[in-house]
Parts: sequence; C-alpha cells; structure tokens
Amino acid sequence: MGDNQIEFQPIGRRGACPAGETLLDCARRLGVELGSLCGGIGKCKGCKTRGTEGTLSQPTPVEQAAFTGEEIEGGWRLACQSYPQSDCRVNVPPESLNTQQRLQVEGREIDIPLDSPIRSVACKLEPPTLTKPVADAENLLEKISGLGPIDLDIHVLGDLSTRLREWNWNLTAHIRNRELVAVSPPGSRPIGLAVDLGSTKIAGYLIDLDTGKTLASQGIMNPQISKGEDIITRINLAIRSPGGRTLMADLVQEALMKLAEDLCSEIGAKTGDILEAVIVGNTAMHHLLLGLAVRQLARSPFVPAVRGDLNVKARGIGLDLAPGAYVYFPPNIAGFVGADHVAVLTATAGEWGHKNVIVLDIGTNTEISLIARGKITSVSCASGPAFEGYHIRDGLRASPGAIEKIYLWGEGVSYKTIDDAEPIGICGSGILDAVSQLYLAGVLDRGGRMLKGSHSRVVEKNGRLEFILVPKEANLRVPEISITQKDVREVQLGKAAIQAAMRILVEREGISEIDKIIIAGAFGSYIDISNALAMGMLPSLALTRFHQVGNAAGIGAKLFLLSSAKRKEIRDLLSRITYLELAGTPEFSKAFTRACLLEPYHLNPYARQD
Amino acid sequence: MGDNQIEFQPIGRRGACPAGETLLDCARRLGVELGSLCGGIGKCKGCKTRGTEGTLSQPTPVEQAAFTGEEIEGGWRLACQSYPQSDCRVNVPPESLNTQQRLQVEGREIDIPLDSPIRSVACKLEPPTLTKPVADAENLLEKISGLGPIDLDIHVLGDLSTRLREWNWNLTAHIRNRELVAVSPPGSRPIGLAVDLGSTKIAGYLIDLDTGKTLASQGIMNPQISKGEDIITRINLAIRSPGGRTLMADLVQEALMKLAEDLCSEIGAKTGDILEAVIVGNTAMHHLLLGLAVRQLARSPFVPAVRGDLNVKARGIGLDLAPGAYVYFPPNIAGFVGADHVAVLTATAGEWGHKNVIVLDIGTNTEISLIARGKITSVSCASGPAFEGYHIRDGLRASPGAIEKIYLWGEGVSYKTIDDAEPIGICGSGILDAVSQLYLAGVLDRGGRMLKGSHSRVVEKNGRLEFILVPKEANLRVPEISITQKDVREVQLGKAAIQAAMRILVEREGISEIDKIIIAGAFGSYIDISNALAMGMLPSLALTRFHQVGNAAGIGAKLFLLSSAKRKEIRDLLSRITYLELAGTPEFSKAFTRACLLEPYHLNPYARQD
Repeated sequence: MGDNQIEFQPIGRRGACPAGETLLDCARRLGVELGSLCGGIGKCKGCKTRGTEGTLSQPTPVEQAAFTGEEIEGGWRLACQSYPQSDCRVNVPPESLNTQQRLQVEGREIDIPLDSPIRSVACKLEPPTLTKPVADAENLLEKISGLGPIDLDIHVLGDLSTRLREWNWNLTAHIRNRELVAVSPPGSRPIGLAVDLGSTKIAGYLIDLDTGKTLASQGIMNPQISKGEDIITRINLAIRSPGGRTLMADLVQEALMKLAEDLCSEIGAKTGDILEAVIVGNTAMHHLLLGLAVRQLARSPFVPAVRGDLNVKARGIGLDLAPGAYVYFPPNIAGFVGADHVAVLTATAGEWGHKNVIVLDIGTNTEISLIARGKITSVSCASGPAFEGYHIRDGLRASPGAIEKIYLWGEGVSYKTIDDAEPIGICGSGILDAVSQLYLAGVLDRGGRMLKGSHSRVVEKNGRLEFILVPKEANLRVPEISITQKDVREVQLGKAAIQAAMRILVEREGISEIDKIIIAGAFGSYIDISNALAMGMLPSLALTRFHQVGNAAGIGAKLFLLSSAKRKEIRDLLSRITYLELAGTPEFSKAFTRACLLEPYHLNPYARQD
Repeated sequence: MGDNQIEFQPIGRRGACPAGETLLDCARRLGVELGSLCGGIGKCKGCKTRGTEGTLSQPTPVEQAAFTGEEIEGGWRLACQSYPQSDCRVNVPPESLNTQQRLQVEGREIDIPLDSPIRSVACKLEPPTLTKPVADAENLLEKISGLGPIDLDIHVLGDLSTRLREWNWNLTAHIRNRELVAVSPPGSRPIGLAVDLGSTKIAGYLIDLDTGKTLASQGIMNPQISKGEDIITRINLAIRSPGGRTLMADLVQEALMKLAEDLCSEIGAKTGDILEAVIVGNTAMHHLLLGLAVRQLARSPFVPAVRGDLNVKARGIGLDLAPGAYVYFPPNIAGFVGADHVAVLTATAGEWGHKNVIVLDIGTNTEISLIARGKITSVSCASGPAFEGYHIRDGLRASPGAIEKIYLWGEGVSYKTIDDAEPIGICGSGILDAVSQLYLAGVLDRGGRMLKGSHSRVVEKNGRLEFILVPKEANLRVPEISITQKDVREVQLGKAAIQAAMRILVEREGISEIDKIIIAGAFGSYIDISNALAMGMLPSLALTRFHQVGNAAGIGAKLFLLSSAKRKEIRDLLSRITYLELAGTPEFSKAFTRACLLEPYHLNPYARQD
C-alpha cells in the first residue's frame, strides 16, 4: 500500500500521506496548522474536519462520541483519529485552523466571472500638428469612441496633456461606465481596493482587476476607537461636538489612506494606481465615513440617511486614489443592518439554494437575515460587547495571547491562545467556550448562577464567585485569569438577544424548518458551534447545518469590486429585503427574558408555543 | 399736435416727447444718456440712433453728410437732428450710450424658452415610524420617482436627515438631469450664476432660474493680473513655478467665490443657494481655473487639453455653491479660441440668418468666426494689448477719466472721457479713434508716419514726434496726454493682425460677400466703427452691416445657464466648427505686412488679387 494523495480545502494544499499516518500528522507535515489542544487523543475536537472525497478509516469510538450520527454521515471526523485509505479531499473549517491559516482563508481567491466596472483600453495616439491641431482629450476620445460617449473627469484631464507627451502618445485608458477615470502608461496592471470597514478593525485587500487575484491584504485598527469604543459613543460625539462629524470622517479617511499606502507599497504600486474601491461597513461606519448626519440613526425609529448604494468620487471623501476613481458603497438595509451584512449576503448567496437559510453576523450588534420563500427578512439586535472581549473582567480583543478556545474535562482545563503565546486574557470565542463549558460541567446552573463548591477552581473573592481559568504562576505575565459571575451575566445578555431575535424572526415569518445557518465574521468563524448550541446562543440543529464562512463581508466587498453583475444583483435583491425592527415588536422583551437561560433551544417548538 | 410716445430700445425706457423737442433732448429728459460731444450740432455723431418704428422728421443736410444713403434708408439718424412726428421706437446702439447705460445693456433680460437643467420639485414627506422605518433619502426619492432613477450627491445627503426634520418633512428638491443636487425649504427661489471670466475682468450675473431674470450683476478684476498682465506670462508661471498651476487656479477660485458672495448679498441670498453655474472664458482662463496642464497651449501646435464641454462639481474647483451644484463649461474651439467665443456665437446665432456672417471679439487676442454655407471657420490672431490701453504711453484701461472717444475737426480736438471725469489717459477705443482721426486729418501718412508740421499739436520731443491730445493745464491731474509715433505703430500692428486674419479667413473659404459683421466684447462695443473702417481695422462695408452687441459672452453664459437646449445646440454646432491655425498658413506674413497700412480695405478685391 503506497502513499495516498490528500488535498486540504479550501486552502488548496496537496501532498502525500504515507500509510499509518493520521490526517492530523499529515496536515501538520504539509504546513496546514490544524488546532489541537488535547494532544491528539480526540478530546478537544480542535482538529475536526470533513471528508468530501475518498475513503478514511472507520470512525473510532472517540469520534462516534464526538459527533452525532448525522454529522458522521456528513463526513465529519477528527483528523487525529482518521487514517486515509485512498486519495482524499478534506475540508478544513475555519475554526480548526490556527490564526495564520485563517488569514489564508480570508485571502482566498474568488471564482466568479470577472466583470469589474473598469474597462482598460490600450491606445496609441497621433500627435497633433498645426494643420490638425486636435485637442488632447478629443484625440484620446476618438480612439475609444467605440465605447460610446465618454465623460471626462477634470482630475484625469488635469495632467492628461503632460502624460500623453511623457508617454509618447501611448497609454492605457481606464473607463468606468461612461467616464474616463484614469490613464496609465501602456501595460500597467489595473488594481482595485476592497475594504471591510469594521468599527474595530479595518481589513483591506488589493485586487488585480484583470485576474481577480488578491495581491496584498492587511488589517489595521479603526482609529475612531480613540474617540469611543462603541458606536453610540461615536455617534454622540459626531452629533454633539462641533466639527465632530468631520473629525470622525477624517479619522477613518486617514486610516484608509494609510492602509491603501501600505498595501500598495507591498506590491510596489502607488495609491494613485487604484482605479476603484469598494467599502463595506455597518450603517454607522458608512455614515461616519461619508460625513452624513447620524442623529437619526440613534433616535427611534433608527433610520439611515440613505439605504441605496452609492458611487462616490474617492477624492470627495479624502481618498487620494486614481484621479477619477470612485468608491462603491453597497446599500444598507437599515439603521443597524449595514452594507457589511449586505456583503455577507452577496458572498454567501451561492450557498442558499432553495432552502430556508439564516445568515448571521455576530458582534456588538448582531445582524440576522432569514432567506425563505423567495424573500429576505433582516433584523438586528444589541448583543453587547462581551463577544468582542469587552465588559469582561479579563477580556480582550482577539490578539496574540488571548485565550480563544477552552475545554473542561473533569478537574482539568485545556485552553488555546492566539499564536500560542502566553495567556494574557480571554477573547470572545474563549468567553463563549468558558460559559458553555462551565454550564455543561455543572459549575453554572440553568439560570447562569455560579455554584459554590461545584468545582475546585471556583473561588470566592470579595463575596463574589469566580472560576479560575489560569492560576497565578510566576512565569506568566498576568497573575490570574478568571471568569466572574458578572462575565457570565454579560454573555447571557448577549446570547439572549441573539436567541430572541432569531426566534421572533423565524416565528414572524412562520418558518418551521431551518436548513442552513451561515455564520459570518471573525468571531463567528472562531466560535465552537457545539458550545454555542449547548448554551442556547444558536438553535439546536445538526452541526452540519452550520457553515462558518469567515470574513464573508470582505469576500463580498471583493465580489462587488470584481463584478458589476453583483452590484446589479444587490439592487434587485434589496427590493426583496424587508427590515423588521424588533423594538417595534411587542413580543421581544418576553422572548429575551426566556432566552437568558443557559440551555439549548429549538426554533420550531417556540413557534408553535406562542 | 400732442405729445408722441417714444420708446428707447434695448433699454426699454418709454415716455412722452412734446412737439418741437429733439430725440436727443427727449432721451436725456427720460434719463437715457446719449453721448454727445459736439453740443448737438451734428458733428460728433455721438448720438446716432436708429428708428425702427414710427416717423421722424426728414433727415437734415447734416445727417445726410453723416450717413450713407444705405444707412439713412436703414433708419440711422442723429438724435440731435431728429424730431419725432409720431409715436416712435428707437434703437440706441451701445456706443451711443454712456458707461452707466452700457451696464444696463449688458444686463438685458433674455427672451428664450426657459429650460434650465435644474428641476425644482416641492415635496411633502411622511415621517418614518418603527413599523415603517424608511430611510430618509429613499423617503424623498419615492416622492420624485416619477422623474426616473435619481442619483444622490453625498454632499446633499450629508445634511438631508437634519434638514428634513428641521423643515418638518416639507422641502423643495432640486434635480439636475438624474441627480439630486440640493434641497431647500419649501418655496425658495432657484438661482444660478453666469460668469464671463476674462483675463482682465470677471463679470458675474445672478439669475432667477424660474423667470430668467437677472437679479444682480457685478464685475471684479481677475486677481491673476497680479501674477502677469498677459496670458503667456500666467501660463509660464503655471508651467515653471512649483505649485504655479494650483496658485493660478486658487486665485481665480477665490475671486469667483468673492463675486458670488457679493452678488448673493445684494439679494439676501447665500452662495449655498446657487444651484448651477456657467463659466465662459478663453481657453487659457478655462484651463487655469480647472487646474489643467497649459504647457501645450503655449507650444506649437497650441492645442487645448480638452475641446468638449464639461460638467464639473462646483466644490471640486473650490466653489462653495449648493452642495451638489455643477459648473457647466461650454466647449473650447481651439487653444486660442475659447468658450467665451463659443458663448458669443451662441448669443448671436439668432442674428445669423442664412447669410455670410463674421463674428469677432477684439482683445489682446482677437477671435474671428466666419459663418457661411452651413459651416463655421474660426481663427485667432494676436492683436496685441494696444486696444486694452497697454503698450501705449498714456494708455490705460477703460475706467473713469479714460478718453474713450476722440474727434478732430480742423485745429480742434473733442474728446469724451468715461464718466465725464477729468482726463487721465486714453483707453482702447480712444486710441483707435485717435489713430484714425489723425490719419484722416493728414497728421499720419498711409504708412503711419507722423508728419512734422501737419498740425499745430504735433510736437517733437527728444527727436520723436507726438500729437498732443490734452495740453498741459494747471487744473488737470496729468500734465499732458499725447499720442506718440510708437503708439501709432502699436495700433498698426494690432489692426494689421485683425485685418490679415479676417482676409485669410474669407479668402480661404472663398466667400465673396459678407452680409453682417457682429462685434462682441467691451472694446468692440465702444469703438467707433467709422474710424475702424477708415484705418482698415475692419473691412469697408456699409455701417448697417456692423452690429455691436456688447458683452455677448456674458449673454451667452446666461443662455447656457437657462437653456439645456442651448447646451445641446452647441455640442451639435461644435462638430461644424473648423479651426484654422493661421500660424500654419503660408500667406499670413505677407497679408500682415500689407495690412499695416492705414487705409480702408475691401474683403473681395483681396480675395481676387492673390
């Protein structure tokens, strides 16, 4: 029996697996960094993967315990327990990958027909003469007259005469719809910029518009954080302080330029080479970047200034890209469901089929869309900052040293930190794991109360109980990392909001079955679904129905950059999207209260009960 | 015999004229300030007018000497010699009016179908609710959806939410083509700005877009003058000094804003109320305002960066008008025939008929267009600064105290100054008069040489002859005003360029008869045509064939502001306009040399001779 060829997807890494080598060892040898906390004994489920082609060894009893029958049937396996029996193709979900690899997932290439709004046309012009003193712009326009009438951007026009002579009358003209937005020397590569503008992080991708390839990607912090961690603080600053709106816009505009410069320098380009940009963000980020009024966003009935998509001159919002470059802003759905969610919908639409699908993006604000019966209904809920590491005593953002995975076994506690650095605190996915695992281990009761004497690590300090996750050790930077009773309450509030929102959404639409739940976003990609089900943050459905799709907003932004068809589609789709304002529903507070309990929940019974 | 009713056109002043009162006295009594230097004895022809309706007394012998038979037949009269015999309508040409009145002529109202690109729609919106949380922009767009899809300018969007609430959901939406460019409180008046951007003066007109009425008009100096009197100096500055292009643009942009502010304050409006602007200027002014490269304008083959018309966001060129306002720039014809000449063509097109027409605008650079056989051919020539009062020893710009008209009779010299102020120098039209009158009086020979002893006022100073126009007198601010031999040479060069350009144009097109010569521009309006014919600046044709139309460029700008049809027409017309670069013709230098002679010339014989 010789080697089998294994292909790990969606990374696309291929290689040989000798007989007797586990899938986990094979993956590691090929540089696919699968997570594993338990040392390959099948306890932590950090290496779970899904075989899609070929034959693996029979599931071990450990695997049979780790997965439901439906999951086993769907191909779910623990890589540490599986031995390839033939050439195989294996899908690695984002949560089974270490941070480094996760970035690769985000950077994955897009496979759609390329149809960017930019058309690049190579031209060779005749120099003007005294007997034929044709104007420079008309000289060029004549060459591209086959594209119909073309408008001129005066910032392109500004240096056109100089460039034409410098380039000896050879150039590439870049046309967007009916407008000349840039000229470049012959043979230059057309590039675009896709941005996912989060309230915390800004992720940027430099894309080759000809090939669709991601040339560079990078993330930076949103500098507005210095003015307020949460969106409401920033909105209030924009409303109340003189010049506040301009300040908030300037901060992001400068950060975007910095990001664009860094990305361009990676590939030896200049920001002036960027022919088109797409920026997706929540409605508040969208408004604050564009300098729009935001008071109405923070006041009932919480309406955005604008819902439809916008094409804005980059220079008009302080972005110094190609002289005539536009920034495309996809539409917003509502005051609290923005273009980032629209981008997620676009990025995942290919997975919907004709089923009942929920798409959700969990954050301080959680957006949820239900796609069913040919229409889309969206809601949003304030799920609080706990899942971003805020309002948690030892919480912090997802960054090196943050505990992102926790697994309790008996008296033992396993955890994994980002970059395997020394633990310095807990980030969102770790907090979720902790609460769920503490509940499952009987440390928390159904109401979320921490039980004295339930575990050797439960201690009382100043009359309050906490669970010591990382005990004080001399060689660690922080003295101790705990989960407090208050932390648990924060998580309960957050998960209750999500559960209540999802329940009301499904109930209102009268849907009895959810076929698929697509979870987008960084936090959603890293969470352990089992733990989310156990505590009732997500509804109890087979694990195979959950798809964690990583930074789908970023992928959606790339799609909008590369495809005019996607821009058209979203305009059509928007008319099918209804926004349901939960604040306007009478049942929300009851549903919320009930959802605070730590227990799994089912969507259907709820719909039948009320 | 009772009073007759007299109407003076184009001013529109009406009033009674008792029997026995001359037309001149009647005009003066009614406040129509006809020029008269000779005291009403029919010598100076300053009061020449043209009866268009009604009966005047029979022409006197003085009038029969002053006009040709054809002119008399055409209704030309001297007001000082004419007595109305019935109700009359009398046309007063611009050159017969004093400065004050001339401004009124410039301000004349426009009689065309109003068809501005701005559509103003009154809207009453429903406020959003929790159950119908419609976005603000879409709330408005829904109301104006009958106009088709409307784009949003983000600068309009910026404060839309605030305004809607401030105005209690009532507003007027201003739409330009398919774009929302402004919103205003219900019932506000839509205003626009028309600008004639000269290299010396900038004239601005605030126009009511609903009625076409001029609400305010004002002129200011072009501040670029501080960087260079002539265009070539300014172009060189823009090319050579770092930031020069930006500086030249900034200077004009600031001046335009100042002009807009002054105009608005006259009628209690704000510049933010200006919904649309039109700016016409020569090609260099156009390029310098827009920040376009200008090197190619000053190098053979002297091509503009762009020929076609442009729609530019006002804020993109430093003009703080309505948030989404555009500035429309009519097309240029060539490097030295700009949008101001195009505006003149548009303003005068109604007068062309199916005849052979020449339209010219005399300045440092003179633009000439020949309209014949369904096509238009344009040329330009460097006629020098003499006609603007430069390079003339006692020359100055048309301003109070400048001698603008001169009449020699025997040993006597009559002159008229602007505003009838004490004479301080000679402006362009005065210089033209002086050279022509000196030639007619035999002081200059055909070659332009001043003849010693030909007149008591010819004196020799430092070996050079000059003609004393205003002798030294104690009560005058300047000691003496003279015309020097060198001044005469400057005028000869200027008029020779114009004559040669016109001759080559007509000859090349093979035209044997010119039916009408339309003279636009301030200088062209104030010159004495007879004097221009006598010295050979203009071709010898009956005076009735000359039409002095004042600031036709400004009128053209207003037309473009008020009429989308005119914008479309000029795009169509542009394809029929050929530019003939005189520097590219072999015959120019010969024609120029011959045209230096002071003598009347005919277009036809010249065409036959060569």
